[in-house]
Amino acid sequence: MTTASTAPVVVLVTPQLGENIGACARAMLNCGLTELRLVAPRDGWPNERAVAASSGAGAVLDAAQLYPTTEAAIADLNFVLATTARPRDMVKEVVTPEEAATRLHARAAQGQRCGVLFGAERMGLLNDDIPRADAILNIPVNPDFSSLNLAQAVLLVGYAWRRAGIEVPSAVLETGGVLPATKIEVENLFRHLDQALAAGGFYTSEQQRPSMTRNLYNLIQRAGMTEQEVRTFHGVIVALTGRSRTVRPS
Amino acid sequence: MTTASTAPVVVLVTPQLGENIGACARAMLNCGLTELRLVAPRDGWPNERAVAASSGAGAVLDAAQLYPTTEAAIADLNFVLATTARPRDMVKEVVTPEEAATRLHARAAQGQRCGVLFGAERMGLLNDDIPRADAILNIPVNPDFSSLNLAQAVLLVGYAWRRAGIEVPSAVLETGGVLPATKIEVENLFRHLDQALAAGGFYTSEQQRPSMTRNLYNLIQRAGMTEQEVRTFHGVIVALTGRSRTVRPS
Repeated sequence: MTTASTAPVVVLVTPQLGENIGACARAMLNCGLTELRLVAPRDGWPNERAVAASSGAGAVLDAAQLYPTTEAAIADLNFVLATTARPRDMVKEVVTPEEAATRLHARAAQGQRCGVLFGAERMGLLNDDIPRADAILNIPVNPDFSSLNLAQAVLLVGYAWRRAGIEVPSAVLETGGVLPATKIEVENLFRHLDQALAAGGFYTSEQQRPSMTRNLYNLIQRAGMTEQEVRTFHGVIVALTGRSRTVRPS
Repeated sequence: MTTASTAPVVVLVTPQLGENIGACARAMLNCGLTELRLVAPRDGWPNERAVAASSGAGAVLDAAQLYPTTEAAIADLNFVLATTARPRDMVKEVVTPEEAATRLHARAAQGQRCGVLFGAERMGLLNDDIPRADAILNIPVNPDFSSLNLAQAVLLVGYAWRRAGIEVPSAVLETGGVLPATKIEVENLFRHLDQALAAGGFYTSEQQRPSMTRNLYNLIQRAGMTEQEVRTFHGVIVALTGRSRTVRPS
């Protein structure tokens, strides 16, 4: 598991608005990133507006380190990515946030210190800073409308980094601890329903009954009911028919 | 390729601040999402603050549809996800943004209309809206600090959706059209360097020379130089040594 000290540092190069720095801190903390480095913030440091915008992520701001230049801010790092648009006149590798995450984790596992640069809000990173990075990180958004703000860029990169380092099941049935019904419980529910339907004249065609019952059984099964829900559904059938179950479950 | 009409609609349920609606529109358009539906926005509609915050994504706001209830807003949809925290007292499937993206694309390919619900800024989605959705979409952020704003939630979901529908190479060497040097060009560069180093007394040990040259050659190779860069590097060697190449390349 990657600990805080092996997470990449976020370096904001000449950030302009305090609000944006605060928003970045907040975006970082959502992703478990805590190390912020600021290169010559335009409005100085500390910055009240940054604190206000950080909405609870003040600790990240408190721990933020100040540097006069990008060179100084990344001096101790082994691997640096520069988040910016694809270069037009440079020979540079360009990676996606996901590929960046893979490399950042791999290098952290090897004990390397990593950082990701983000440029000023309107200007982005200067050409002079790009050669200081190992590769460019480009966030692939709509080419016809590409307007992420600073905190959003930090968020997307941070989210990709976090996701690559944790295991989150892609899909989970949240049941609050209640177990799925066992198959015999589902079978018995279906039998109850089937009998009630038959008694109610639902099956108008004996020839079609087998396929109709299979379809209903599939439907019941697909609901993925919990034990509690199966019990509830028995009650639904009883209430609808006005009759209790004629055959008790085995 | 998924066209605009097969992209999921974004449904904001009782959004509070116009600024947030505008920011959502902007986040959407970054991800190629254009269909916005608003359920009973608190401050009415249209909303000047939304327009101001949309920063160029005004077209999304212009096309936004207004509904009095969530039920009405999703009436025509076949598949709906509710973006919210994991439920504590409901039996519901919970998917990640990436899994959601997979399902949204799959259903769109089957001609289904899909939508993703986002709740009001502070309240999130009401319990009454969750059963209206097929599953819950939960964005896995730092459990110790989970504070995405509305536009950020829309951005992360939209970005995952977009990414699942396009093919972006994870890493590309951007060269502005210049080809990587051929291997013979790299070989000749190395020979030039090797000869210049030998003439300069670099190889102090004949026994270690083979491994030293191999290391240097590996280093040169790793730079992944373009033709232009190889030519430049020849010039560097010439400038450093004060001598032109003694052996011209074959």
